[in-house]
Amino acid sequence: MINLFNQKSIVLTLLISFFPWLSAMADGQQKEDLQDEILHVFSQQVAAWNEGNLEKFMATYWKSKELTFSAGGKTTRGWQATLDRYKKSYSTKDLMGKLTFTHFEVTKIGSEGALALGRWHLKRKTDDREGNFSVVLKKINGQWLIIHDHSSNLEKE
Amino acid sequence: MINLFNQKSIVLTLLISFFPWLSAMADGQQKEDLQDEILHVFSQQVAAWNEGNLEKFMATYWKSKELTFSAGGKTTRGWQATLDRYKKSYSTKDLMGKLTFTHFEVTKIGSEGALALGRWHLKRKTDDREGNFSVVLKKINGQWLIIHDHSSNLEKE
Repeated sequence: MINLFNQKSIVLTLLISFFPWLSAMADGQQKEDLQDEILHVFSQQVAAWNEGNLEKFMATYWKSKELTFSAGGKTTRGWQATLDRYKKSYSTKDLMGKLTFTHFEVTKIGSEGALALGRWHLKRKTDDREGNFSVVLKKINGQWLIIHDHSSNLEKE
Repeated sequence: MINLFNQKSIVLTLLISFFPWLSAMADGQQKEDLQDEILHVFSQQVAAWNEGNLEKFMATYWKSKELTFSAGGKTTRGWQATLDRYKKSYSTKDLMGKLTFTHFEVTKIGSEGALALGRWHLKRKTDDREGNFSVVLKKINGQWLIIHDHSSNLEKE
């Protein structure tokens, strides 16, 4: 005869034993989901850049006066000013070249924030440039948007 | 004779009318508190630097292998490696010079995160250097600690 009480006890014991493992698995899944969502933002960026479409590239940035973009020791304020800065530096498709991002690292900051680090590489007819970036993203109306970007050129030693 | 019902209604009406204002005031206070807490981290940093004490300066950084410090297109990983990098570049009190931070901007990221931007200026016997920084802080065990720093030198045009 089946002892239901014992069966339940076994299930319960198993659940309790596996709980830390299940919880760690859920955390790992959450981390992976966040990573995927953030990587999607960057793949959109790269695709837009390599199409030569700066407006589309800028769609991944928070369309706000509070957006900040730091590079070369200076900070540009606001979405429009950031787009204008890009337009000035990358006025032709040749100047834009081919962009690749590598070495991604995503860190969760609470439920609505993330820090993403990575390396950028720009292959152009005239030169190759590379460096790293630190990007802070915020989930605004269900969408991950860049609220701050700090990019640096690799300094030759 | 005092009409209690009317008195209560008045209080209620007043409370409802002022609620958005009270709520905005509370938000403003919270923002100010956060700003104060973060500024305290930076004032500790500056004081330690100007004492020539790099270990004390580094006490404001997360003592973890996951700490990241980006500068000059490169990223240093871990608290110890970041301290070692500072020790190598600033081996004497003269090389450390006098540090000042200005133009602070603090943005809240959820309940446990913050982004702080600012400008740094280093006055030394041999040269003056300046640039900007983007710092991500996380509240860990009730203490605001820097989990990522991206600092740039001002590029001369």
